[in-house]
Formats: sequence, structure tokens, C-alpha cells
Amino acid sequence: MIDMDVFYMREALKEAKKGFQEDEVPVGAIIVHNDTIIARGYNMCERLKDPTAHAEMTTITSACNYLQSKYLNECTMYVTLEPCVMCAGALFWAKIGKVVYGARDEKEGAFLIDKNIMHPKTKIKGGVLMGECAYLLTSFFEKKRKLDKKK
Amino acid sequence: MIDMDVFYMREALKEAKKGFQEDEVPVGAIIVHNDTIIARGYNMCERLKDPTAHAEMTTITSACNYLQSKYLNECTMYVTLEPCVMCAGALFWAKIGKVVYGARDEKEGAFLIDKNIMHPKTKIKGGVLMGECAYLLTSFFEKKRKLDKKK
Repeated sequence: MIDMDVFYMREALKEAKKGFQEDEVPVGAIIVHNDTIIARGYNMCERLKDPTAHAEMTTITSACNYLQSKYLNECTMYVTLEPCVMCAGALFWAKIGKVVYGARDEKEGAFLIDKNIMHPKTKIKGGVLMGECAYLLTSFFEKKRKLDKKK
Repeated sequence: MIDMDVFYMREALKEAKKGFQEDEVPVGAIIVHNDTIIARGYNMCERLKDPTAHAEMTTITSACNYLQSKYLNECTMYVTLEPCVMCAGALFWAKIGKVVYGARDEKEGAFLIDKNIMHPKTKIKGGVLMGECAYLLTSFFEKKRKLDKKK
């Protein structure tokens, strides 16, 4: 039997890997509605020179556009890293049904500040493919450090 | 002598009034860099069917695009309402120099949750043209309620 959370998190990981290839902090996200992926994205802060272009933000905008609705209460977001405060705030406004994340963000994760940032009806599940999601991020920052040393 | 904070807040109010005309929750924002307004915007959540399209978010994206920088540390945002958690998170990532807001948001304001959501170097000033900024919002919600009653 396939664990659908693992299946969908692999899709989010594919997005994160695209980010890695483009020298972006590798975080990927997808949004699922009625067993269908309706939006996918990865962090594009460097490419767009826009600090708001996190994977979650662009994916929320895409999904809302697809559904022509401000609300995503029947959707699940899969994201490779625990959302930051900005993204948690956006997920609150979208009234997202469920958030499944991979790696924990011990530095900027929203749940460190206050779990109540999320909408009270939103379900939250963490740690799906945590190792793979975290590995991608640590590899990225190690590569960055090595390049910085060479400069 | 002109109080520049009042001057710029009037510009943010002009934006908020455009929102009012378009049946959006009337919040407006501008971003100032070197005494020049480099970005302006108002809440467009209804028009775009996008819960992330707050005045602050679109204005941050515009200003970053204008400066071709992810950071707005030399900029001031004027916004007619205290930022929510999402927008405060975005202002954190942008490392905005200063935020000047008008009305207090007793319900969704970020500073109620935690003042530390903002970057430690960001200066914050509240209450500029508070009455006018709040009046626009209360008028909007009163109009909405009257229309809802008629339905």
C-alpha cells in the first residue's frame, strides 16, 4: 500500500531539487485538492529578487487562481520545510485544510513562535521524509560555504 | 513645517481609498526610499482571489523589483493598518528599515502575537493618522453589513 503523504512529499521534493539546481534555498511545495496536484512551486527568492517568493506563497497563489477561490480549506499543502511566519500567516488566511511538512526549521519555523498562527481548523503533520528534506538543505548550505571559502 | 510621516501616510491613505472604491478591505501601503515613493499598492485579495495579495505584500514585491534587491533595509513602509502576521513575516525577510502604520489591528495585528516577528533592526511607529485610517475601515465594514442585511 502506498503512503500518500510520502508519495506527495516526493513530489514536493522534486520541486525543492529544481530550486537546488537553480541555486535557490531548496524548499518545494505542492497543493493537493481531490487527489490531484493543483499547484507546485519552489523557492524563487533569488531569481525574482523577492523575499516573499517562498515555495508556499507562490503555490498558494497558484492554487487560489486555479480554484478561483481565496480559500483552500479542502486542500492539503505538502512542503519540504516547516513554514516560516510569513507562510504560516498566508496559510492562515487561505484557511488551508492541512499542512504536511518534511524537515523541521529550528531557526525560522513558525511553530516555534506560536502554533496558533495557523487557522484553528488546519491540521498539521510534520516529519514526512524529514531526512531527505533536511539532507537537501544541509547539502545546499555546505556547497554554499565551500564556494564562499574559495572566494 | 510638514510632518513627513503624515505626508506619506496620506499617500498610503489614497491607496486604501482606491481599495474602498473596488470593494476591497481598504488598506493601502507605500514604500519610500531616499525621499521617493518607489512602490504603492492596496489590498487586492478579492480582485485577484488571492489571500496573499495584501497591500504590504504587493508593495514589497514592487519595491524589491524596482531596487533589484531582496532587501529593503534603506526603505520605510507606510501602511494604513498594523501589519498581520503574514505581512510582518515578509517585512522581516525584507529587513525593512522602518514601518509606520496608521490604525491598530486589535484582531489580526502581528504585534499582538509577538513584537519579535519583525527584524531586530526594523524601527516601528504606530498611530500616524490613526483616526482617518481606522474610519475608512469601519465605514467599509458598516457598508458591508448594511448590504448583507438587505440580501
